[in-house]
Amino acid sequence: MKILLIGANGTVGSAIDRELSARHEVVRIGRNSGDLHVDISDSASIRSLFEQTGRFDALICAAGNVKFVPLNEMNESDFALGLQDKLMGQVNLLLIGREYANDGASFTFTSGIINREPIRTGSSAALVNAAIDGFVRAAAIELPRGLRVNSVSPTVLKEAMDKYAPYFRGFKPVAAADVALAFAKSVEGLQTGQTYQVG
Amino acid sequence: MKILLIGANGTVGSAIDRELSARHEVVRIGRNSGDLHVDISDSASIRSLFEQTGRFDALICAAGNVKFVPLNEMNESDFALGLQDKLMGQVNLLLIGREYANDGASFTFTSGIINREPIRTGSSAALVNAAIDGFVRAAAIELPRGLRVNSVSPTVLKEAMDKYAPYFRGFKPVAAADVALAFAKSVEGLQTGQTYQVG
Ligand SMILES: NC(=O)c1ccc[n+]([C@@H]2O[C@H](COP(=O)([O-])OP(=O)(O)OC[C@H]3O[C@@H](n4cnc5c(N)ncnc54)[C@H](OP(=O)(O)O)[C@@H]3O)[C@@H](O)[C@H]2O)c1
Ligand SMILES: NC(=O)c1ccc[n+]([C@@H]2O[C@H](COP(=O)([O-])OP(=O)(O)OC[C@H]3O[C@@H](n4cnc5c(N)ncnc54)[C@H](OP(=O)(O)O)[C@@H]3O)[C@@H](O)[C@H]2O)c1
Repeated sequence: MKILLIGANGTVGSAIDRELSARHEVVRIGRNSGDLHVDISDSASIRSLFEQTGRFDALICAAGNVKFVPLNEMNESDFALGLQDKLMGQVNLLLIGREYANDGASFTFTSGIINREPIRTGSSAALVNAAIDGFVRAAAIELPRGLRVNSVSPTVLKEAMDKYAPYFRGFKPVAAADVALAFAKSVEGLQTGQTYQVG
Repeated sequence: MKILLIGANGTVGSAIDRELSARHEVVRIGRNSGDLHVDISDSASIRSLFEQTGRFDALICAAGNVKFVPLNEMNESDFALGLQDKLMGQVNLLLIGREYANDGASFTFTSGIINREPIRTGSSAALVNAAIDGFVRAAAIELPRGLRVNSVSPTVLKEAMDKYAPYFRGFKPVAAADVALAFAKSVEGLQTGQTYQVG
């Protein structure tokens, strides 16, 4: 399969790359790193990416930014980043990318545990993660040509605990390699409309 | 209690009004109908509403618009209405309204079944409903002063089947009066961070 991997250089993405590149052609995409570049918060940039990639069999997005701010300091504009970047970025990868997707191709997006197990400063992340999982569930039933869409919702990764431990006290972190397995299940399996929870 | 009821003239809102007005002071608010007016998609309009209402003990929002369009006709801009109106409208009612909320006051928002049981044309509604339920869960744990926030997620209402039946074949509709009970449970109970599913 030809797999577009957005965020290939990240904590989650690099583990997905290791899992899938032995069996498939992985196109590594990042905002600044990788073979090709995209800013998912900008739909013109997304369109230009697909003009460079051409047709594909699977798209994985392991990228997406949201603001982490205490609720009492948050106002409307603090939610805008998450809506435009992690949420509509991934939605737009499907809305625009479907034109370039081969029959039976899959889209796999990344949400995260914070809507199930909320944390301090996580109100925008919870909103966005839940929205991704809800979108995936509904979009799946309307996709034509055997196209599929799933999300992977990991808890915090072992490999990210140096940065995130203070926000996730008491959470049992998972290995990035185990998160990568859920992406392989989505890409190489046949299910659609699923959210694969890891941890 | 002094209860601000946005969407008081609607199918859901009028049943909430009937349930709560015997026991409480209900301020009826609509876009054009009611004692006071607001457009929840406009944060300046929300701010002006609270300047008129003053302090309150409960806020209920039974209003919110999203686009229903087949996924294959949807593009980024079709998602904007739901993000700005039903989703950020309700989020902004909390972000702005909390300044006017008495200690222990509650916010109760409306989502809906479509993220749990998706329907044709429902991808934006599913995204928005899930986002509301995710936001409520996370915001609840960070609210100060005993403030609470919940959502009510009804299936289609009996009273709306004249308009919506073709979209909800096989769904067992619920009476508006039963949906109103879930709002009473949120307002008059003490739970927070909950999504009350009705139907
Ligand atoms: N790390 C965790 O513990 C964890 C747990 C649950 C969920 N998640 C979610 O998983 C996703 C990836 O997280 P991560 O920790 O792997 O991130 P990361 O290590 O910071 O890597 C992010 C990757 O995404 C790319 N990227 C960032 N913003 C982008 C944009 N706007 N457009 C295109 N590419 C962009 C980066 O490109 P460059 O390489 O060019 O900078 C990088 O390759 C996020 O949505 C995050 O919320 C992470
Ligand atoms: N009806 C159902 O079966 C059902 C099922 C599940 C969930 N829901 C959800 O419940 C909510 C209410 O639905 P409904 O069927 O009761 O709607 P409705 O009968 O059309 O009534 C909508 C009410 O909200 C007000 N409104 C509309 N847009 C507004 C805005 N931007 N700002 C402020 N007020 C606004 C209207 O004001 P005016 O009176 O001035 O026009 C009206 O009072 C929606 O979020 C809907 O998705 C409905």
